[in-house]
Amino acid sequence: MSRKKYVYYFGDGKADGTGKMKELLGGKGAGLANMVNLKFPVPAGFTITTEACNTYFANKKKHPAGMWEQVLANLKKVEKSMGAKLGDAKNPLLLSVRSGSRFSMPGMMDTVLNLGLNDTTLKALAERTGNERFALDTYRRLITMFGSTVMGVERNVFEKALEAMKKKKGVHDDTELTTEDLKSLVEKFKAIYRKETGKEFPKDPLQQLKLSINAVFDSWFGDRAVTYRNLNNIDHDLGTACNVQAMVFGNMGDNSGTGVGFTRDPSTGARKFFAEYLINAQGEDVVAGIRTPLHINEMKKKVPVAYKELDRIYNKLEKHYKDMQDIEFTVQDGKLYMLQTRVGKRTAAASLKIAIDMVKEGLIDKKEAIMRIDPNQVEQLMHPRIDPKANYQALAKGLPASPGAAVGKVVFSADDAEAAAAKGEAVILVRPETSPEDIGGMDAAQGILTARGGMTSHAAVVARGMGKCCVAGCTAVNIDEKKKLFWVGNTTVRQGHVITLNGTTGEVIVGEVPLVQPEMTGDFNTIMKWADEIRELGIRANADTPTDARAALKFGAEGIGLVRTEHMFFEGDRIKAVREMILADDEAGRRAALKKILPMQRSDFSAIFKVMDGKPVTIRLLDPPLHEFLPKTDQELREIAKDLGVPFKKIQARNKALLEFNPMLGHRGCRLAITYPEIYEMQVQAIMEAACQVAKKKVKAIPEIMIPLIADVNELKVMREMTVRVATAVEKRYKIKIPYDVGTMIEIARAALLAHEVAPEADFYSFGTNDLTQTLFGLSRDDAGRFLPYYVEQGIFDVDPFMSIDKKGVGLLMKMAIDSSRKIKKDMKMGICGEQVDPESVEFCYQVGLTYVSGSPFRLPVARLAAAQATLKKKEKRRFTSMA
Amino acid sequence: MSRKKYVYYFGDGKADGTGKMKELLGGKGAGLANMVNLKFPVPAGFTITTEACNTYFANKKKHPAGMWEQVLANLKKVEKSMGAKLGDAKNPLLLSVRSGSRFSMPGMMDTVLNLGLNDTTLKALAERTGNERFALDTYRRLITMFGSTVMGVERNVFEKALEAMKKKKGVHDDTELTTEDLKSLVEKFKAIYRKETGKEFPKDPLQQLKLSINAVFDSWFGDRAVTYRNLNNIDHDLGTACNVQAMVFGNMGDNSGTGVGFTRDPSTGARKFFAEYLINAQGEDVVAGIRTPLHINEMKKKVPVAYKELDRIYNKLEKHYKDMQDIEFTVQDGKLYMLQTRVGKRTAAASLKIAIDMVKEGLIDKKEAIMRIDPNQVEQLMHPRIDPKANYQALAKGLPASPGAAVGKVVFSADDAEAAAAKGEAVILVRPETSPEDIGGMDAAQGILTARGGMTSHAAVVARGMGKCCVAGCTAVNIDEKKKLFWVGNTTVRQGHVITLNGTTGEVIVGEVPLVQPEMTGDFNTIMKWADEIRELGIRANADTPTDARAALKFGAEGIGLVRTEHMFFEGDRIKAVREMILADDEAGRRAALKKILPMQRSDFSAIFKVMDGKPVTIRLLDPPLHEFLPKTDQELREIAKDLGVPFKKIQARNKALLEFNPMLGHRGCRLAITYPEIYEMQVQAIMEAACQVAKKKVKAIPEIMIPLIADVNELKVMREMTVRVATAVEKRYKIKIPYDVGTMIEIARAALLAHEVAPEADFYSFGTNDLTQTLFGLSRDDAGRFLPYYVEQGIFDVDPFMSIDKKGVGLLMKMAIDSSRKIKKDMKMGICGEQVDPESVEFCYQVGLTYVSGSPFRLPVARLAAAQATLKKKEKRRFTSMA
Repeated sequence: MSRKKYVYYFGDGKADGTGKMKELLGGKGAGLANMVNLKFPVPAGFTITTEACNTYFANKKKHPAGMWEQVLANLKKVEKSMGAKLGDAKNPLLLSVRSGSRFSMPGMMDTVLNLGLNDTTLKALAERTGNERFALDTYRRLITMFGSTVMGVERNVFEKALEAMKKKKGVHDDTELTTEDLKSLVEKFKAIYRKETGKEFPKDPLQQLKLSINAVFDSWFGDRAVTYRNLNNIDHDLGTACNVQAMVFGNMGDNSGTGVGFTRDPSTGARKFFAEYLINAQGEDVVAGIRTPLHINEMKKKVPVAYKELDRIYNKLEKHYKDMQDIEFTVQDGKLYMLQTRVGKRTAAASLKIAIDMVKEGLIDKKEAIMRIDPNQVEQLMHPRIDPKANYQALAKGLPASPGAAVGKVVFSADDAEAAAAKGEAVILVRPETSPEDIGGMDAAQGILTARGGMTSHAAVVARGMGKCCVAGCTAVNIDEKKKLFWVGNTTVRQGHVITLNGTTGEVIVGEVPLVQPEMTGDFNTIMKWADEIRELGIRANADTPTDARAALKFGAEGIGLVRTEHMFFEGDRIKAVREMILADDEAGRRAALKKILPMQRSDFSAIFKVMDGKPVTIRLLDPPLHEFLPKTDQELREIAKDLGVPFKKIQARNKALLEFNPMLGHRGCRLAITYPEIYEMQVQAIMEAACQVAKKKVKAIPEIMIPLIADVNELKVMREMTVRVATAVEKRYKIKIPYDVGTMIEIARAALLAHEVAPEADFYSFGTNDLTQTLFGLSRDDAGRFLPYYVEQGIFDVDPFMSIDKKGVGLLMKMAIDSSRKIKKDMKMGICGEQVDPESVEFCYQVGLTYVSGSPFRLPVARLAAAQATLKKKEKRRFTSMA
Repeated sequence: MSRKKYVYYFGDGKADGTGKMKELLGGKGAGLANMVNLKFPVPAGFTITTEACNTYFANKKKHPAGMWEQVLANLKKVEKSMGAKLGDAKNPLLLSVRSGSRFSMPGMMDTVLNLGLNDTTLKALAERTGNERFALDTYRRLITMFGSTVMGVERNVFEKALEAMKKKKGVHDDTELTTEDLKSLVEKFKAIYRKETGKEFPKDPLQQLKLSINAVFDSWFGDRAVTYRNLNNIDHDLGTACNVQAMVFGNMGDNSGTGVGFTRDPSTGARKFFAEYLINAQGEDVVAGIRTPLHINEMKKKVPVAYKELDRIYNKLEKHYKDMQDIEFTVQDGKLYMLQTRVGKRTAAASLKIAIDMVKEGLIDKKEAIMRIDPNQVEQLMHPRIDPKANYQALAKGLPASPGAAVGKVVFSADDAEAAAAKGEAVILVRPETSPEDIGGMDAAQGILTARGGMTSHAAVVARGMGKCCVAGCTAVNIDEKKKLFWVGNTTVRQGHVITLNGTTGEVIVGEVPLVQPEMTGDFNTIMKWADEIRELGIRANADTPTDARAALKFGAEGIGLVRTEHMFFEGDRIKAVREMILADDEAGRRAALKKILPMQRSDFSAIFKVMDGKPVTIRLLDPPLHEFLPKTDQELREIAKDLGVPFKKIQARNKALLEFNPMLGHRGCRLAITYPEIYEMQVQAIMEAACQVAKKKVKAIPEIMIPLIADVNELKVMREMTVRVATAVEKRYKIKIPYDVGTMIEIARAALLAHEVAPEADFYSFGTNDLTQTLFGLSRDDAGRFLPYYVEQGIFDVDPFMSIDKKGVGLLMKMAIDSSRKIKKDMKMGICGEQVDPESVEFCYQVGLTYVSGSPFRLPVARLAAAQATLKKKEKRRFTSMA
């Protein structure tokens, strides 16, 4: 026998394991060991470790050497503790077998109860309990559960036989079936088992046990479990433990029962016991929803002694775990048995309230409270969302591009969206993809649905900036703009039809689904305040307008990390001047057009500086290629030609000449400014003049002028020279010194690789993790929809690198750039302004030493919380224990 | 006075410097020092160092401390040696002042002759020589040269005055002007000088000298010199030396003269003295082309003693330098003076012949011979080129995408090209850009001109593969395909008009320019053989067809480094099956279409294996996005719909769905194969079946199966598994073992960064330096035409990274990938298959330890030579001394 310990006993007030051994014993096993050590009444049992499971897979599904012997030895201990014996013809022990990994997950094998019954032990059970009906009911349950969960027989086949019997007998409830009925049912079930599996139901209880243990192990690689782990970034090599425990019976009469409960209200977080009880039932009846559970007060009435004990225990458990617990228990003949305890799942609102209350109660401190809250859950509180109780079926699924939910009538153009909104109608804007010209319509709509584009497509970025629900890149949606309809498979949705979008999951639903409105309560602000006290990472917002800037401040921004100046170019009449500039024949023509744009840009910046008074504002100079400002159709080009009084032919030719094969890699960013310096010169002038003008009104502008898309330090050198030249001239003219910085985006892989060359020319960096991801992966965010989801599903990529920073590649390059630059400029200011401000990315940014992260205003609370947690994790050198 | 030595004297059979001090004294100064040390007759003088020049610029154009004093001291030595004194009223010394950097370069200040003349010394000169006319002629030359080269007066202004005088006097040659004429001309010239510069012509010879020295220094940063250095990758911090030397006079009568010559024939390399002589003239008359020089035999007749001396000296010089010399000399009154010697420029053919002859003559060894040949020059020998004697003016300039020259009638479609070629007409195919559908037309044309696309655009790559002249990305060219014409500015070129392309320079010329045919002689083969004996770097070819493969062998390929399988997809009927595959609704439909393609691919590979028998063939599986195989217009789509019997609407929708914003970063390479594994499965099957089939005919196929576009090792894992599975099945079926490898392109920056993870899964790497450049720089090769040339021109980028590997960025990443992978697999096979096989890139590839480079067959001789030179440079740890 191997010396390796694969089996941990618990029972008789003493467990081999402890509550801390979640990795080895799984959550359930650790909980059971803990309760035993706390001297709570727990039926004896043992846990087979996750290590045994992993070895089982490594051994081509053979038990590790010695495991089975340890199982048998521990079984003996259980038998001794319970005073009963597995398979005994007189006093048989029955067992439950359950999976239990570190994280609970759907798709894992749940439970086999009543294991150990066969025709012999059945009789013994009937005799000992004096209740043959109970024994038979228990037996048919075992055959059903073993047949379905262990042998893979459709549960439905058994259910149908049960229904047929009830129908035949003219009864409604299972409990109304007679002993004779059940006897015949047991035989039917055995026949079903034989027919479906080609084998007899196993008589040997040890064989039942062995097969059940294997089934628990095997369920670790069941399809649903694998998918779940992929979706939730859980490692596949954790393995599951297997818990084998003596059965106690809640179905031994009205003095017995079973219950589940939470130590606080998991919906609201209110401090009250929130539990349900089912008289004369086994746990599976609660789970299966066959019978409706009763309020816990019914337990108090029926079994007051057991209830009192439960009351003592749940309070003690919460104090012990210092967190809200989710418990399972059974009452057998008036005696309480605890079957499970674990940290309870809760809504976002409850999560905040419980954390805050527990701080007030002195159970935990603020730091612990902060660590308790899942940042992703916080997002729920900020947007309308689909009522968790609503039932619906999704028509299609796209990318969850901007969280929240929206209901409205479908429209297919920005104009239609604006017109409908003007009439007070709620609409959903459906587009193949959006472009800057759609912004008005996007603003007017409740939500946006696009057929193409990724997590950082125009639609996604703008929607997040607006805090508006968006499902992007929903490739199943086929749009016919002319006919104003879209279809998915055989379903056609026409203009005016109502749909619901779930931006948190990416679902598109036909019809109206009820929504729940956002709940940004006092608790929310309390938690944010605490997070801000703790975190060390700066938080900024991406904001292009004074409205955005105000939202940024509301959500806790300490500055603006990214003003995209190009968005300003689309508003109202400006686009005309912009197009005039683009279509000009020479520099003089361009300068004339830029002269018209200058005062507009200046007023844009003034307005933002006023809102952000005293806080830094990072302004990125023009980034997109010029053709993005020209319309796509000949019809529109003709209108422009007319507007500008230029021949259509010329406009058409210029438009064609500007088109690019790969605009992402084309003539944009500083490349535009190297060839047409006058554009950036105008922008720098506008920024500096705005700063000087507001200074006269006692507003402190702190502009950080940011050059996009550099691949080589020489580009930055040229741009820096230009910026300083123009800025100095403005300062001289206004006789004011403005505390401005000149920095650069690090978004091209080469600039990151050669950051040591770039650093001397830059006052600050902002990592453009989107473009960096695009260029490092050679992956267009707008085109990746056809394969990237599949990559993530198949585990080829761990995560969608546009959703969360690819730490291995992009992260490594960032770290190299940060370290090499800080060797030259020790305290250099560095941030990110990509859209990846999910908790994992925020933690990474903190770890590698960035100064701040910047994201859409609506995503800042999540970032603030994640930043606080990152600080705590680093300081306390401890791992975040998942809420799951 | 500073101790630093800024001035080096030469004269009287002894020089301060030596012939090896090119960096400090410049080429000319080192040559003069050398000749003095060899005891040849050289007028005394001194060289002011390049270091003085650099300090001058560092000091805001002030002479370094002590320099001027050293000039004066050395001037004294010259005066002593020549027995004359600068500015002396009786026996005045005259000086020449010339620039002379390490590399000779156009745009540098050339020469001021006769410095030291003023009204006083003029008289003395006239008296001493008894030739007033000569003295006056010398004076007016000084005023012209000093005025124009030192003071920047338009030379033309002086020329006009001279012409006016000749016209007035009714004479044709300068020599016909009388003394009185010249006297009046000198006054006129002084007046011009006064008018143009606002100052009197300086009387003080020392001031003349100082201004001339400064002008030499300043010319280092003259516009043309800077541009030249940028274009030729010469550092701007080398600086120029300044040579001050006593004048000797070739214009003192028929017993005097001046000459230039080469020690061998610079056109053919033949071993004979190749020189010209001008009687009674100064050097500038030769250079200016005012008078036609005579055969050197005339010198022999006129000044036999001087000629005999020259004969002795040039032979000695060649033996000394062990290379063909370009010399300048002057005969003053029957006495020979040597003024310059330097390594002579020569044609490619001469370069080979001279190197080979000198090995035969025992002057140099084979290694030295190899080092002597500029690899870029070798390219000239392989293609028709524009006659170097031809005069022409370019209409426009694009990228020199594929070398050589071509003349033909303009056509605007591949069909027209094929039709015209069928009639025996030479045509130039002009396209906005080419696509694989144009290949037939490209093959039929003499040359290709495109308005868009870079050095590695489709047109460029295919043209180089065909060894055909191509000018790409000529943005000045506006094409109207409908009207079948293009225009540049006001010039319109219509179908049928003749144009000439210079693919070596990128020039487009209206009309026919005479061409010179290629000259791949025995010398060529001798040099290639020697290069192959020396080089250690492997040489492979990019080849897609048996024809390409034969060309590859002819040009010395040791294997194929890249077979692009997608090119095979376009031929003949295949495209129909390919489109059927793309437009299929499901996997079954795709498999059905692939079944039709399989035998075609198999026969492709068989044919290539047969040609390459026993040599490795790297086959890249399908790389481009599927939409590249679909046509662009509705008209063509309709035809396909009809062909395939599928509704047009469906085809149109599928086509639209496949379009991508950034195809370069889209659904291509292994990403296609991850989502549609059946495509690569078919290709692997075809490769392996071909290998097995030819094996039965005793042909040894060595396939290296290459997976493109991986960004993560997981992609390669999946692909490798698939490849081995399919390959093993074929091997079993044929009962043959094939020595195949599975490797990957390293062309995505992330794969290079994480190469340590990739290495365990790859048998070999091929660096795709094009895509690596594109993704690392975030630069689309097809769109960069609008700014990349400007970047290079402005020195923002040192080189076009698509022409030569960007060593700083791309090279660094390659080196990281190579080193980290070789730590895991010590001798891992690695090559490049980008198009950058220029000498610099080849040397780099050798230095970082690649196994081989692979390029178009026609570029291999250059690569072989460059590889041999790289080996010699490394082995002998010496720097290649430029021919320039």
